[in-house]
Amino acid sequence: MKKMVDLNSDVGESFGAYTLGNDDEVLTYVTSANIACGYHAGDHTVMARTTALAKQHGAAVGAHPGFPDLGGFGRRLMEVDPEEIYHLMVYQIGALQGFCETENINIRHVKPHGALYNQAAGDPDTAEAVVEAVKRINPGLILFAPAGSKLVKTGRQKSLTVASEVFADRTYQPDGLLTPRSQPDAVLKDPDQAAERILHMLSSGEVEAVDGTKLPVEADTICVHGDTPVALQFLDRLYHMLRQCDVTLQIPGDSQ
Amino acid sequence: MKKMVDLNSDVGESFGAYTLGNDDEVLTYVTSANIACGYHAGDHTVMARTTALAKQHGAAVGAHPGFPDLGGFGRRLMEVDPEEIYHLMVYQIGALQGFCETENINIRHVKPHGALYNQAAGDPDTAEAVVEAVKRINPGLILFAPAGSKLVKTGRQKSLTVASEVFADRTYQPDGLLTPRSQPDAVLKDPDQAAERILHMLSSGEVEAVDGTKLPVEADTICVHGDTPVALQFLDRLYHMLRQCDVTLQIPGDSQ
Amino acid sequence: MKKMVDLNSDVGESFGAYTLGNDDEVLTYVTSANIACGYHAGDHTVMARTTALAKQHGAAVGAHPGFPDLGGFGRRLMEVDPEEIYHLMVYQIGALQGFCETENINIRHVKPHGALYNQAAGDPDTAEAVVEAVKRINPGLILFAPAGSKLVKTGRQKSLTVASEVFADRTYQPDGLLTPRSQPDAVLKDPDQAAERILHMLSSGEVEAVDGTKLPVEADTICVHGDTPVALQFLDRLYHMLRQCDVTLQIPGDSQ
Amino acid sequence: MKKMVDLNSDVGESFGAYTLGNDDEVLTYVTSANIACGYHAGDHTVMARTTALAKQHGAAVGAHPGFPDLGGFGRRLMEVDPEEIYHLMVYQIGALQGFCETENINIRHVKPHGALYNQAAGDPDTAEAVVEAVKRINPGLILFAPAGSKLVKTGRQKSLTVASEVFADRTYQPDGLLTPRSQPDAVLKDPDQAAERILHMLSSGEVEAVDGTKLPVEADTICVHGDTPVALQFLDRLYHMLRQCDVTLQIPGDSQ
Repeated sequence: MKKMVDLNSDVGESFGAYTLGNDDEVLTYVTSANIACGYHAGDHTVMARTTALAKQHGAAVGAHPGFPDLGGFGRRLMEVDPEEIYHLMVYQIGALQGFCETENINIRHVKPHGALYNQAAGDPDTAEAVVEAVKRINPGLILFAPAGSKLVKTGRQKSLTVASEVFADRTYQPDGLLTPRSQPDAVLKDPDQAAERILHMLSSGEVEAVDGTKLPVEADTICVHGDTPVALQFLDRLYHMLRQCDVTLQIPGDSQ
Repeated sequence: MKKMVDLNSDVGESFGAYTLGNDDEVLTYVTSANIACGYHAGDHTVMARTTALAKQHGAAVGAHPGFPDLGGFGRRLMEVDPEEIYHLMVYQIGALQGFCETENINIRHVKPHGALYNQAAGDPDTAEAVVEAVKRINPGLILFAPAGSKLVKTGRQKSLTVASEVFADRTYQPDGLLTPRSQPDAVLKDPDQAAERILHMLSSGEVEAVDGTKLPVEADTICVHGDTPVALQFLDRLYHMLRQCDVTLQIPGDSQ
Repeated sequence: MKKMVDLNSDVGESFGAYTLGNDDEVLTYVTSANIACGYHAGDHTVMARTTALAKQHGAAVGAHPGFPDLGGFGRRLMEVDPEEIYHLMVYQIGALQGFCETENINIRHVKPHGALYNQAAGDPDTAEAVVEAVKRINPGLILFAPAGSKLVKTGRQKSLTVASEVFADRTYQPDGLLTPRSQPDAVLKDPDQAAERILHMLSSGEVEAVDGTKLPVEADTICVHGDTPVALQFLDRLYHMLRQCDVTLQIPGDSQ
Repeated sequence: MKKMVDLNSDVGESFGAYTLGNDDEVLTYVTSANIACGYHAGDHTVMARTTALAKQHGAAVGAHPGFPDLGGFGRRLMEVDPEEIYHLMVYQIGALQGFCETENINIRHVKPHGALYNQAAGDPDTAEAVVEAVKRINPGLILFAPAGSKLVKTGRQKSLTVASEVFADRTYQPDGLLTPRSQPDAVLKDPDQAAERILHMLSSGEVEAVDGTKLPVEADTICVHGDTPVALQFLDRLYHMLRQCDVTLQIPGDSQ
């Protein structure tokens, strides 16, 4: 049984008069907080507040940069060339770093958001641009990347510390990719089933794909959501099950 | 005669498909480059290119944060409360810092832009917010502020190094403020006259207001423009006159 | 007792992934729906949905244009010159008109939002620009303007039909202006008290200011909110009290 | 020889402090002006000015809607679903219609911009959404669509008047599509060669693809650019050659 794992969640996704998520509650559970950086969600005031809140709860602060598409919440693919992806990563990580400096803390990790995350997972040039941006800003930053993806591989080839990420509430395809949200069986609805899957991943190093195939899976960090009452319940369940099984919740960098 | 002075200019104000200014040429003259940070002008790609260009020309890099108003080029007053001004300063300075890190250089100074600069010059709460943001990000940063303004005073009270800024092509009111651009005599048209005014400021420590009053003026850094052929000619004239008079062009922090 | 009055509410203020308000419920009560036009809130998808919803509920559709400031929800003053205010009004009214055309209905009224509304209430040049925009687009549109304001006067001088608007849950100053939200007694908390004030306005043509002064007040349309459970309860109370008193709820244009 | 053709150009692409193109000069040549609507370029002030200018020069006014991507000038593909494409078309056409109403003119045509135009040319769902938006707003509007594309076909199937558009300065692939700009031979550099191609299209109804294949081509409207001195020279050349050949320049709707 893997004895240490990180719990991460996307936070700071409110904007101006618009509130999204339950950051106050989510931050009592997670060890890593991925803070939106103003492109797909979040703004300077939300970032300031969320950075302070994460510090207060002892969660490690990470940048969660996305495509410049507030209207689409960064979930729409955009044909942005790799050089510009490098630039938009640097901009957003830098901006969050500003808030960290005012709080006398450091950014610990970077996790691209939505369509950018998916594109970096599969497209080698995007993966390269993402890795290069993280490295040039600070080679000590940990990159969060989907388990089994090109992004994990590219990051490690370039000597970054990479945390392989799994999703508690999503199903997997035989090729190791997440089932797209457009398909009916993409999301697990049953909290117990989802929590058990995670425990199984930690004990066996495997996950069962939708067709029954056993896939090897490296679970350094688990992505959880807390934006609905159900998600919060599930998060609470998973949190306590992990502790019952003596799994230490810990940010990835500390275990390596 | 003051023997050292800084020449600064606003650069990196292009955006996407839109080009503004002649950064390539301006950067051959100035010692300090104020780079727009994506709120009133500039974008991540322009910032990357301009930071690299400034480094290449040996100009010190400074952040030039403005109001979030691309449509108004940051020149319109916005009723932003001091706490949010603090946040938008941190965001923009942080973002530029990201690009500096990829170039292995440091931001040297901060100069607020347009309506934010004017508001910080006169309103104590805004001045306080601007100073606090600079200080919390990095107390070693130099703040550029209009000669004689509350912003100069507030910055120094809070132990920041402040460079008192004068404008080569603008006239002054008896109270020491710049004549607003809405008035006919706000801008000097004659390059020779403008250059001589600057030399007079440096030798006498005084400037003549529009009504003939002599005002004490501290000229640590001179703001110049290069966005038109005439402005470039004037910049060239001033540059050579300063050198002829054995005035060393030098970033402010080095002389203090 | 005035026997006809309009109930209006601001709707369509969601944006992308962000939801705001309870439009579905609010639209079962109001006779006039002020739909945000994408500058301070709302987007093309929200506008399409809200226009269809208003039509379905039989509420008259009005444009609710604001300053281009999504981050500040259009509540911050911006120093926009009158000519540009004219332009931004035309743009936003036109955009909403597009959605009305796809639904085979017409825009009935225009109510500026937030800081633009306040500025038009007090500043003659802004009032003129707002009135001119409405008139040039369609002189048959009804302008909603704060009771007693310059905007009411300007609109009528220029031959627009103006609906004088009162607020159910706000207190008034002796000079007839709303008490600014920054003051503690700006908002009425007690639904019964608020509803009785409205009935008193309709029966007496007067409202009592915070200092006890009696002010004449013309109540053609009542602004109500429905963005919180309490606001919805209050709306329901007011709606039923008005019907009990045989006040007909009706859009302003029809009574004139 | 076809005796009537329309000349169209994209105008109104300036934004705030940023100027793009030479609208004043271009509008002396073209019969149809495609005005940017604020999503990929243009703003409310530019739209007002450009609509008035087009009217003054007697050019027909058309909407030129694009993706919501000012930073990418609407040239980047975005994964926007067809329903939202319908909405963003309605919004932008409506907004321009507002300015037309203040000028007492009507929009005559609609031409999608950049990546939206390309996507509508090839993807049936996008084509359908574009056609539906135009039709629902006003079935009398003329749709400009690339010669030979699905968009031409879809528009005509749905009873819209469609103007088949050719490009004066672009080369064609054997399948009838434009050579992508990323390829070296995509753009014709020689004005004479380009003008002769156009005349050949008009006289023969054919165009020669890059591999020599003869393709049938329907040229109802010719897209020209005027954003550089060379482009303006070329526009002038083409304009005079067409008149020498007794080709009448005329907006498409009038000939059908």
